[in-house]
Amino acid sequence: MDLREEALKFHKEHQGKLKVASKVPLNTRHDLSLAYTPGVAEPCKEIKQNKDLSFEYTCRGNMVAVVSDGTRVLGLGDIGPEAAMPVMEGKSVLFKTFGDIDAVPICLGTKDPEKIIETVKLLEPSFAGINLEDFASPKCYDIEDALKKEMSIPVFHDDQHGTAIAALSGVLGALRFVKKDLKTARVVVNGAGAAGTAIGRLLVFAGAQNLVMVDVHGALYDGMPGLNRIQAELAKNTNREKRQGNLAQMAKGADVLLGVSAPGVFTADIIGSMAKDAIVIAMANPVPETSYEAAKAAGAKVVGTGRSDAPNQVNNSSVFPGIFRGALDVRARQINEEMKLAAAYAIANLIPENELREDYVVPDVFDPRVTPAIAAAVARAAMETGVARVKVDPEAVRINTAARLKK
Amino acid sequence: MDLREEALKFHKEHQGKLKVASKVPLNTRHDLSLAYTPGVAEPCKEIKQNKDLSFEYTCRGNMVAVVSDGTRVLGLGDIGPEAAMPVMEGKSVLFKTFGDIDAVPICLGTKDPEKIIETVKLLEPSFAGINLEDFASPKCYDIEDALKKEMSIPVFHDDQHGTAIAALSGVLGALRFVKKDLKTARVVVNGAGAAGTAIGRLLVFAGAQNLVMVDVHGALYDGMPGLNRIQAELAKNTNREKRQGNLAQMAKGADVLLGVSAPGVFTADIIGSMAKDAIVIAMANPVPETSYEAAKAAGAKVVGTGRSDAPNQVNNSSVFPGIFRGALDVRARQINEEMKLAAAYAIANLIPENELREDYVVPDVFDPRVTPAIAAAVARAAMETGVARVKVDPEAVRINTAARLKK
Repeated sequence: MDLREEALKFHKEHQGKLKVASKVPLNTRHDLSLAYTPGVAEPCKEIKQNKDLSFEYTCRGNMVAVVSDGTRVLGLGDIGPEAAMPVMEGKSVLFKTFGDIDAVPICLGTKDPEKIIETVKLLEPSFAGINLEDFASPKCYDIEDALKKEMSIPVFHDDQHGTAIAALSGVLGALRFVKKDLKTARVVVNGAGAAGTAIGRLLVFAGAQNLVMVDVHGALYDGMPGLNRIQAELAKNTNREKRQGNLAQMAKGADVLLGVSAPGVFTADIIGSMAKDAIVIAMANPVPETSYEAAKAAGAKVVGTGRSDAPNQVNNSSVFPGIFRGALDVRARQINEEMKLAAAYAIANLIPENELREDYVVPDVFDPRVTPAIAAAVARAAMETGVARVKVDPEAVRINTAARLKK
Repeated sequence: MDLREEALKFHKEHQGKLKVASKVPLNTRHDLSLAYTPGVAEPCKEIKQNKDLSFEYTCRGNMVAVVSDGTRVLGLGDIGPEAAMPVMEGKSVLFKTFGDIDAVPICLGTKDPEKIIETVKLLEPSFAGINLEDFASPKCYDIEDALKKEMSIPVFHDDQHGTAIAALSGVLGALRFVKKDLKTARVVVNGAGAAGTAIGRLLVFAGAQNLVMVDVHGALYDGMPGLNRIQAELAKNTNREKRQGNLAQMAKGADVLLGVSAPGVFTADIIGSMAKDAIVIAMANPVPETSYEAAKAAGAKVVGTGRSDAPNQVNNSSVFPGIFRGALDVRARQINEEMKLAAAYAIANLIPENELREDYVVPDVFDPRVTPAIAAAVARAAMETGVARVKVDPEAVRINTAARLKK
């Protein structure tokens, strides 16, 4: 059976991948009188006095909506909300399996950003967080910005920020191995869509001083015509020398070359022109900008890709469960830049110094330490930046998360 | 520990009552490649070609949204969406336990009917059905009507229709026992809110020819001032003699007196004035219009109430799981009057003739035959009335439902 047949059978066999289950017994009239009338009136009355108690007395505290309009799904493009369901459902299963988070796929029957914003806002009383997924660019920026402003639960566009955190963790891990510093390293990011700009912004926030963003029109510079508002803002904070030129010109002498762009664009010539101990992270999916082997042959010291069949897999699927676990455990009002940065460092620093190897600069996506480490770091950063509703011990978050995931 | 304390502990212990779970293994990279990228693209592509396949390849086919705005919750009134969560979550647990349906509580942060309609409409791609709950009257009518018109999945306001089906099943069971006919029986319904009008409409649809609706202003008659549009329509189809008067006057000589009104309003005098073999069904919650004992002492032959501590419990909690189970199993586009009527008969006819007793005219809410019987009848009626997307054998629905619930 080929993958196509097997995947269809896998999805049809159980009518999808996700189900709802009860956490409480419901075998007797007494059980029923607690879970439903008349007993259920008691938590209702408590929450009426203090809305925040809905995080304690209901499932809300562990519920995340995985929201999409199906306009930019995988490499398939605008396939519509019904056809996006398998991906959002898969994401929800990953939330559960890797974060013990109760996530619900919500695919919306509209492409109108205003309607999407209005709808997601109205879902707030039932959820502790919103994961936005597979919205086309540039509307994804407007949707996320509006929702972050108007909601008091975390709103996280994973295609941007999950990818950015994964990318930054890969860069940090590789720099640790080659003993270079992010502040001074020359970094080139190829691709300035939703993922690329998010990576650029997080690199700047992390302290990268010599970053150049490149897209199909060449290096982004302040004042470049045709940029969207996010690209324009990013161009102000990067490429300080306002260099103009193509990818090959920018990559020459670079310490780090990171791609969220197109298959095969990192040629041997480009990689060969980079600085000593060059780091290449090729995240185009499913076919990266270069293969692990080709990049190594061209002279790169450390190579990472999005693929599971090569070393140093750099992929957001190991990031978002921990981010939300940490945010939910402190009932965070938002996921801010400090929390994202803390997550990237938590991943990058998980491997002890003496275990780092050129083909092991980031932990495996199945490494059971990853989600607990991210969750603890995110919870700590949330408390330090004042967006946590409750105080917890970060070490307890780490231990509890590990325990939840073992079950 | 009193009920209040116990109920709060029950809800806090597990952070609510509901969780999400995976139906598929996710232990290896191969599992991941089927559930998520790259394999997940295959069902996406199939569904893109034919949206209806989302019912087969995703969890959608078994997913129901339990939607409320929290404006009329239990006897608590307008307590807001956060405080309504314990009830909607409890309802979702009942959906799971008694119907093996994956229901998700969605409490909306608005009271505006237009916004509610727009939001629920946009949820359609992710769900196979919508259960509306605890919306204030009369906006509940407008919301349900608009959604039924604009959505092609079932929309069911349980406070109206679940209650109406339960009430009708009680009436039919009691009439069976006393050997009277619904067509000719004199029926009085006290209460003309959302539940009362739904009961009245379903009684008319079921063939009741001598029905009078009564509210605090007295008997409803065609042309009565101050009626809302639903009451006005119902007044046209009931009380053909346009009688005017209060409850006591209408109940005199009646065969059936049914209440969805207020505690204690069915006095001994009123019950004593009814016809021979009088049937009293008192559904006010949690304190009915009369107690079982008081009604019997006043001369009623058959008495039903909404309470679990008296015989003949007439309660919608044994109805909606079967209704949706049957509707989902044939992928119904709506839940129409024929399906509701079929459900009421399925419940009423479950008890064999020779087992009927005055204190056993409807099956127990925990009777495991109830949901399978309703599901089969609803599936059959959906197919017969052309609202089913797929054909199934109703007997197979009954057997499969029983098997699902045993697990």
